[in-house]
Amino acid sequence: MTIPAAVAAAPGMTEVREFTAPDVPRDGGLLRIEAAGVCGSDVPAYRRIREPTILGHENVGRIEALGDLARERWGVDAGDRVLIEEYLPCGHCAWCRSDDFRLCDATDIWMGGIRYGTTPVSVAPALWGGFSRFQYLHPRSVLHRVPDDMPAELAALAIPLSNGLQWVLREARAAYGNTVVIQGPGQQGLACVVAAKLAGAARIVISGLASDTRRLEVARMLGADDTIVVDAAAGTKTSAMDANGDSTGARSDALASHVREITGGRMADLVIEASSGGPGTVSGAIRLARKRGTVVLCGEKHRPVPEFDADAVVSRVLRIIGVRGHGYESVENALALIASGKFPLEAMCTDSFGLNDVDRAIRRLAGESGSDAIHVTVLPWA
Amino acid sequence: MTIPAAVAAAPGMTEVREFTAPDVPRDGGLLRIEAAGVCGSDVPAYRRIREPTILGHENVGRIEALGDLARERWGVDAGDRVLIEEYLPCGHCAWCRSDDFRLCDATDIWMGGIRYGTTPVSVAPALWGGFSRFQYLHPRSVLHRVPDDMPAELAALAIPLSNGLQWVLREARAAYGNTVVIQGPGQQGLACVVAAKLAGAARIVISGLASDTRRLEVARMLGADDTIVVDAAAGTKTSAMDANGDSTGARSDALASHVREITGGRMADLVIEASSGGPGTVSGAIRLARKRGTVVLCGEKHRPVPEFDADAVVSRVLRIIGVRGHGYESVENALALIASGKFPLEAMCTDSFGLNDVDRAIRRLAGESGSDAIHVTVLPWA
Amino acid sequence: MTIPAAVAAAPGMTEVREFTAPDVPRDGGLLRIEAAGVCGSDVPAYRRIREPTILGHENVGRIEALGDLARERWGVDAGDRVLIEEYLPCGHCAWCRSDDFRLCDATDIWMGGIRYGTTPVSVAPALWGGFSRFQYLHPRSVLHRVPDDMPAELAALAIPLSNGLQWVLREARAAYGNTVVIQGPGQQGLACVVAAKLAGAARIVISGLASDTRRLEVARMLGADDTIVVDAAAGTKTSAMDANGDSTGARSDALASHVREITGGRMADLVIEASSGGPGTVSGAIRLARKRGTVVLCGEKHRPVPEFDADAVVSRVLRIIGVRGHGYESVENALALIASGKFPLEAMCTDSFGLNDVDRAIRRLAGESGSDAIHVTVLPWA
Amino acid sequence: MTIPAAVAAAPGMTEVREFTAPDVPRDGGLLRIEAAGVCGSDVPAYRRIREPTILGHENVGRIEALGDLARERWGVDAGDRVLIEEYLPCGHCAWCRSDDFRLCDATDIWMGGIRYGTTPVSVAPALWGGFSRFQYLHPRSVLHRVPDDMPAELAALAIPLSNGLQWVLREARAAYGNTVVIQGPGQQGLACVVAAKLAGAARIVISGLASDTRRLEVARMLGADDTIVVDAAAGTKTSAMDANGDSTGARSDALASHVREITGGRMADLVIEASSGGPGTVSGAIRLARKRGTVVLCGEKHRPVPEFDADAVVSRVLRIIGVRGHGYESVENALALIASGKFPLEAMCTDSFGLNDVDRAIRRLAGESGSDAIHVTVLPWA
Repeated sequence: MTIPAAVAAAPGMTEVREFTAPDVPRDGGLLRIEAAGVCGSDVPAYRRIREPTILGHENVGRIEALGDLARERWGVDAGDRVLIEEYLPCGHCAWCRSDDFRLCDATDIWMGGIRYGTTPVSVAPALWGGFSRFQYLHPRSVLHRVPDDMPAELAALAIPLSNGLQWVLREARAAYGNTVVIQGPGQQGLACVVAAKLAGAARIVISGLASDTRRLEVARMLGADDTIVVDAAAGTKTSAMDANGDSTGARSDALASHVREITGGRMADLVIEASSGGPGTVSGAIRLARKRGTVVLCGEKHRPVPEFDADAVVSRVLRIIGVRGHGYESVENALALIASGKFPLEAMCTDSFGLNDVDRAIRRLAGESGSDAIHVTVLPWA
Repeated sequence: MTIPAAVAAAPGMTEVREFTAPDVPRDGGLLRIEAAGVCGSDVPAYRRIREPTILGHENVGRIEALGDLARERWGVDAGDRVLIEEYLPCGHCAWCRSDDFRLCDATDIWMGGIRYGTTPVSVAPALWGGFSRFQYLHPRSVLHRVPDDMPAELAALAIPLSNGLQWVLREARAAYGNTVVIQGPGQQGLACVVAAKLAGAARIVISGLASDTRRLEVARMLGADDTIVVDAAAGTKTSAMDANGDSTGARSDALASHVREITGGRMADLVIEASSGGPGTVSGAIRLARKRGTVVLCGEKHRPVPEFDADAVVSRVLRIIGVRGHGYESVENALALIASGKFPLEAMCTDSFGLNDVDRAIRRLAGESGSDAIHVTVLPWA
Repeated sequence: MTIPAAVAAAPGMTEVREFTAPDVPRDGGLLRIEAAGVCGSDVPAYRRIREPTILGHENVGRIEALGDLARERWGVDAGDRVLIEEYLPCGHCAWCRSDDFRLCDATDIWMGGIRYGTTPVSVAPALWGGFSRFQYLHPRSVLHRVPDDMPAELAALAIPLSNGLQWVLREARAAYGNTVVIQGPGQQGLACVVAAKLAGAARIVISGLASDTRRLEVARMLGADDTIVVDAAAGTKTSAMDANGDSTGARSDALASHVREITGGRMADLVIEASSGGPGTVSGAIRLARKRGTVVLCGEKHRPVPEFDADAVVSRVLRIIGVRGHGYESVENALALIASGKFPLEAMCTDSFGLNDVDRAIRRLAGESGSDAIHVTVLPWA
Repeated sequence: MTIPAAVAAAPGMTEVREFTAPDVPRDGGLLRIEAAGVCGSDVPAYRRIREPTILGHENVGRIEALGDLARERWGVDAGDRVLIEEYLPCGHCAWCRSDDFRLCDATDIWMGGIRYGTTPVSVAPALWGGFSRFQYLHPRSVLHRVPDDMPAELAALAIPLSNGLQWVLREARAAYGNTVVIQGPGQQGLACVVAAKLAGAARIVISGLASDTRRLEVARMLGADDTIVVDAAAGTKTSAMDANGDSTGARSDALASHVREITGGRMADLVIEASSGGPGTVSGAIRLARKRGTVVLCGEKHRPVPEFDADAVVSRVLRIIGVRGHGYESVENALALIASGKFPLEAMCTDSFGLNDVDRAIRRLAGESGSDAIHVTVLPWA
């Protein structure tokens, strides 16, 4: 048997290659992929790929084959339907002995670790990504059971959804009655809308660009109370402290005015910067937070924030927290939330593509053909 | 009776004036000041004073007179010895109904509030500051009992000491076994050394300039394990992200190398930026924090941080928290800690001056005659 | 002017008496009562009254008169509509400097304190309770603004509702996805249903007696997923550890079986004992909690639990917490929740009575004329 | 090679048997035991043994042999010195993905799980306990590195010491300035003294029987401020609510009087019931806790508490928490604490016995030859 998989072979270029089916070790397995979500982080990975790699790390499917030790340890059988986390934690360090196994060095690609959707095909047995008919199940895999009747595209959505739950509920600890502002209506921002709703937020505000019309509409469907359109140009400038005409200023001017008005000048309890804007959006987020408020940073900007108002952090006694990925319980929570049917999450599943169209799938999420895609899925058997 | 008080009359200039003794309202009182500490924040206030004001807000003394309603409400009598917090909270807002009464708008001078040591003499009855023989006790005063046998200068130290306890124990939640780095060996930094020691920190590192010899020696007496001298010039530059030759870089190079070495590359659990250096010290502090670490910012820099590495906050999942002042329990804890005699806190009480020497007291703390003062006290009856 | 008020004059007997209108002190006021809720704790107070007392401590109305100091301190004016908490905290102790002012000794009747609805008429100026046309506003009152368009009976409901929010959200910290079991569908139990819903509980189970049909129906309207009828006789027996035929056993048998089934044997994350059953219900609650689960006790049983399974607390690593009343923010949250209209809370407002019918009001809540009353209100001007 | 091990063969009877050395699987290993601590839980296990079992689960030694997969996964090599936790968690359930892997069903002997020191010799490869020259290292073992220069008996002490750290610091969250009362000066109680000291407790009180003289002396060496001798007879009675002459009453009378006196009637912030007394000690512990205080229960009594004052839990807003064992970080902390030399922990290592004297070792800890043993160790090569 050979296995076709879409390999990111060079920057911005994917090709389908055939791989030999790997031997299944006693403590590992093989997953038949049903659906693999495209994560926002796949876009820069795709554009700057250095070594041929099968991308895709929001992977759901059925266990095709399974070693005896894996069966015992994982408590699953061949034929079972599972969602696989992207992390391959060592299982034995202090991080792995806490809620934070995703911070384990063994899962950190910069420290020589391996990770689904990121490890290149040069590392045996090559099949590390979800944009493939089958994926290798390494002994250190983290699995979650998926109900048989859950559509595969929704199950793949559990990964970005779990991020929102992790960040808003567990890290920021949003509370009943909070005013929550979310900058950016991409899949992460929308997952944060859902989480804020679950936390009992009294008012949820989300901002986006003029081209985000559809995303903002979905935000409202998911529970956002106010959607604010900010200036597209604003995100490209970076100065955060010059109030005159700089785009960040402009961006937050509309948003800040709105937040000031609805809170009677008190400002937001929680601000989540989930936009793909430049570093100036960080300064904008800080301006929106009330005394004792929290600002969540969840994406890298690849440039420093040019004028960071550390004094505002002190005078308003702010808490600025970085967040990354999800814990185990958040993924379980996300799957249960999807199963509950309480939110119209299918509205987030905007696009799907076959294995031959992975280039289109990634470019679709990147906004190269309009910015109205939300969650894009690769269906390798379609 | 007239009351002599040292009035900050113009920038950098204090003069002793006589005030009429105020009537004591039924719900207020009058305090005979024994000692008033000079806070770091008195230095800029003194240099930029706009309206004549009696400075001094770390005030300890005996109740000289007391209205009947105040006696009942405060549970104290004339003759009792008390420490007065600087805050005059309204007592009825949501902040005042929580641990955070210091954030009450009524105590915020920028929002038209009043506060001991900051409210000018033009607001009746003028006697709002501790650099005076007597201080007015407003109905909204926050009092703490002081044991009769505690030296007044040590009792005044309870205010800065309570800041360290508040910030390190309650806000940052330092834990047993932590590596704690403190930038700056002033009274706040040294209070943080004490608090880190109480938290069971495994290793306490404090940095200072070459001129901080005495302060660093006191840091060691209080429990610091390592004292690191950093380049004085470094603090004046501001670029945080240029690794070549900028002072912040230089400053953190020595310190960062040390922290890297003693933690085996893991870096610090908790970093407290308590220096009087420029905004670049904020970036330096962030570089010292480990994955999931906490950085505490506790002083305003009056300039933006030029190149803030928000991506490090995300990739290392950091928590950056602003802190300001102390809660009620932290002051009680500080007084109990002083009474316990477990730390050689008297080493922090380096200087005291009479009412006619308030200019010298403030300049001494400001480092105009050498930077080895730590806690300076005005003794208005000396 | 004289003021008619319903005085609990002897056990189980109320009479309307006329009182002289009190002088309004500079730091106090007078409230014209619109509605006063009957609390579950009023029932035993009424039955065992020792000194003539005006009961009623869930009081909403308009400020009739106000001293100048009170106006300034409370930030309200004559004519403003407010809800008054039952507590009269000293405002100056460590409890009052935290979230927990309700634990202040000055508000503890057993320690010589005073409290609305509990302090007898022998303490001047007598008008301490809400079952009266006017209530004295003591200088230490805790006030909350009430919107003009909120029905008075709903506003009075904010007090029991705030208990549910305080206990479930702030003390027990119920989390998204939890299975929550509530024993007893009285006003406190139903408030806990609302709070559990706000917390994002995945499954809310509430138990009641056969006579609780209407209450259980309201529970479902408020968001309970399952309502379980348990044996009325069961609550009267007390042995918790004898599995054969004791009522507690019987009670929890039906409930425990259900919880076991819906959780796949895992049992409940959070159990709230809010029933008026005997002490055996405490043991029943403990049997329902999962490993690392929480059990909330919120009512006194006036008898010891006969066989408390402390070993279960250890082996299942349980947390048993006592709760009492509400903090300031929980009352604000409750008022905002009522104003939001998101829950059909009017279904809890089952009965109201005039000032001449206070006996009937209390007996109605006590279940002397059927157990289907939920929240009963006295409307002294009706 | 055959391996001699002390097998608990019948209630109260141990015999040394020879076992065949097991094959070392690719994902497991073999440990050469240097020292194995005797835990308090070994005493009832020994007295009621049902199937022949090698007891001992505080095991330190050097890795004798190691499979290649285990080497990679555990990051250790043959010859390395390690401490082994008693738990064999599955590594894949929700408990194992959090701090609480010790609650994993796979490590629960009552649910068919396995565990070091408890699993009988009938389960291959028999060598599950530390009272043996070698112990089998199962693939699911949890290992901690031990410095070469740490005496083996002190390293074994890390297990009970980690319990104290876990319970006092992580579960009860003891804070600076607390008054902490510990009932029972056995190894767990003394570990709690150390932890309370690390938490910055202002006052540590420990109670014991008249025969506990040596243990109470060690308590003082470790930092206890007050040692209170209570009546030995008191622990045998069980009624907690009868104030006349019952032993629990008597026991807590002396202790309660002392706590009342030193706290000015406020009572203790934290009470830890770590005694081997009967269930009445639970009620005694509850009486010692202040409003908002915490009571920790850490040992099973095997009988219900006869009259549990649930009303006190409500009226004093108490938190009663069950605790069991330790998390990973607490063991790391305990090893670091031993290495630091900051506490005279060697005073806790009172006795050691060879492999032929395991009966004597267990009986020594059980107090059959005087109650002054604290931590007893089996040295199988001595």
